[in-house]
Amino acid sequence: MADSVEGSVAKLRFDISMSLDGYVAGPDQSIDEPLGVGGRQLHEWAYGLSTWRASHGQEGGKTGVDNAAVRESLENIGATIMGRGMFGPGHGPWGEEPWEGWWGEEPPFGTPVFVLTHHPRETLVKGKTSFEFVTDGIHPALERASEAAGGADVKLGGGADVAQQYLAAGLVDEMQIHLIPGFLGGGARLFDGAGLEGIGLERRRVVDSPTGVVHLHFRTAGERGR
Amino acid sequence: MADSVEGSVAKLRFDISMSLDGYVAGPDQSIDEPLGVGGRQLHEWAYGLSTWRASHGQEGGKTGVDNAAVRESLENIGATIMGRGMFGPGHGPWGEEPWEGWWGEEPPFGTPVFVLTHHPRETLVKGKTSFEFVTDGIHPALERASEAAGGADVKLGGGADVAQQYLAAGLVDEMQIHLIPGFLGGGARLFDGAGLEGIGLERRRVVDSPTGVVHLHFRTAGERGR
Repeated sequence: MADSVEGSVAKLRFDISMSLDGYVAGPDQSIDEPLGVGGRQLHEWAYGLSTWRASHGQEGGKTGVDNAAVRESLENIGATIMGRGMFGPGHGPWGEEPWEGWWGEEPPFGTPVFVLTHHPRETLVKGKTSFEFVTDGIHPALERASEAAGGADVKLGGGADVAQQYLAAGLVDEMQIHLIPGFLGGGARLFDGAGLEGIGLERRRVVDSPTGVVHLHFRTAGERGR
Repeated sequence: MADSVEGSVAKLRFDISMSLDGYVAGPDQSIDEPLGVGGRQLHEWAYGLSTWRASHGQEGGKTGVDNAAVRESLENIGATIMGRGMFGPGHGPWGEEPWEGWWGEEPPFGTPVFVLTHHPRETLVKGKTSFEFVTDGIHPALERASEAAGGADVKLGGGADVAQQYLAAGLVDEMQIHLIPGFLGGGARLFDGAGLEGIGLERRRVVDSPTGVVHLHFRTAGERGR
């Protein structure tokens, strides 16, 4: 990221749950089933954690290594970038009364969110979160998000296609894969085909949870990473 | 395996090196490049290990957690099953002087090897290894391998398609994935699409090597595993 945003020392990071067969959402995603068939098993380890609950306005919850992994992924984040599909369903132009997305009145971000889309739209403010709609691609979105983050890191909120585009462009600094011991057999792959083969990875840390999840933390390095 | 081979307590196991994007061989596999483009990086961690060297008739080499992972994968193996492509290149009928495969005069197996093929052929003996050619499918191959193993475990020697067929049939008991921190961007995937989604996995052990490789050891469980 330092290459493209002069003077900034912030990082572009993401964390995501992935099945052993490489899927981050199940097959047949729809409005009724936004995670796809079987996709819920990717996230079950996180629902009861205290950090996850706190980010959704709830008290209590479990602590431990899973919780520490989530907490770390939320620390020092000043802005979020996400794809159109993570904001809400549908990919056409916004209507006159555009639907306000998946996230309700109190979205769990609490930072400016930059939504990649082909269709311009006014900024939407919900609780402590603002959604800005960016139509000129991943580089301008990263510049605006970095500026909004004010020196803190920028997080990719998904989906898989957005993470893959930033990775292939050599712009991702760190990623944490929460590897789930199970198969989805179809759906959206995080790492799909050509474009990533030049990117070096340094393993930063591996945390093995009693719940079965393995948290794999990588830093990009070498030829295309920094 | 106990379900299909009465009275046997042996296990069907495999271990394989996989890139973070899920490939066990690179793109464009050929006689000159049997691991595919970039595929060598999947195996570099293993070449200098003492156990790997010993199985190829060489002395010395590195010890440590990587070596322990390889040693465990070789322990208590009484027979091996592999696909036609792991024996040697080409998929047509055997000629009158059929080519004798990739493995030379002293193959590193030292057990009976059962090669899945559509074309019958006499058993080939090379050093301490015999290659038997099985034309009637994965279940008969497993029965014959189990019998030959005499109570020891049976190992799948690859390729990805063979591992996947045995997994989808619910016949694999344990697998060890050597996860490599890198991307191949194409090639042969170990877990490719539908057929595996009913299989439960229990994580048995995670070993995090200083070389960057993460050894993930799973036992099958639940609906389709045992």
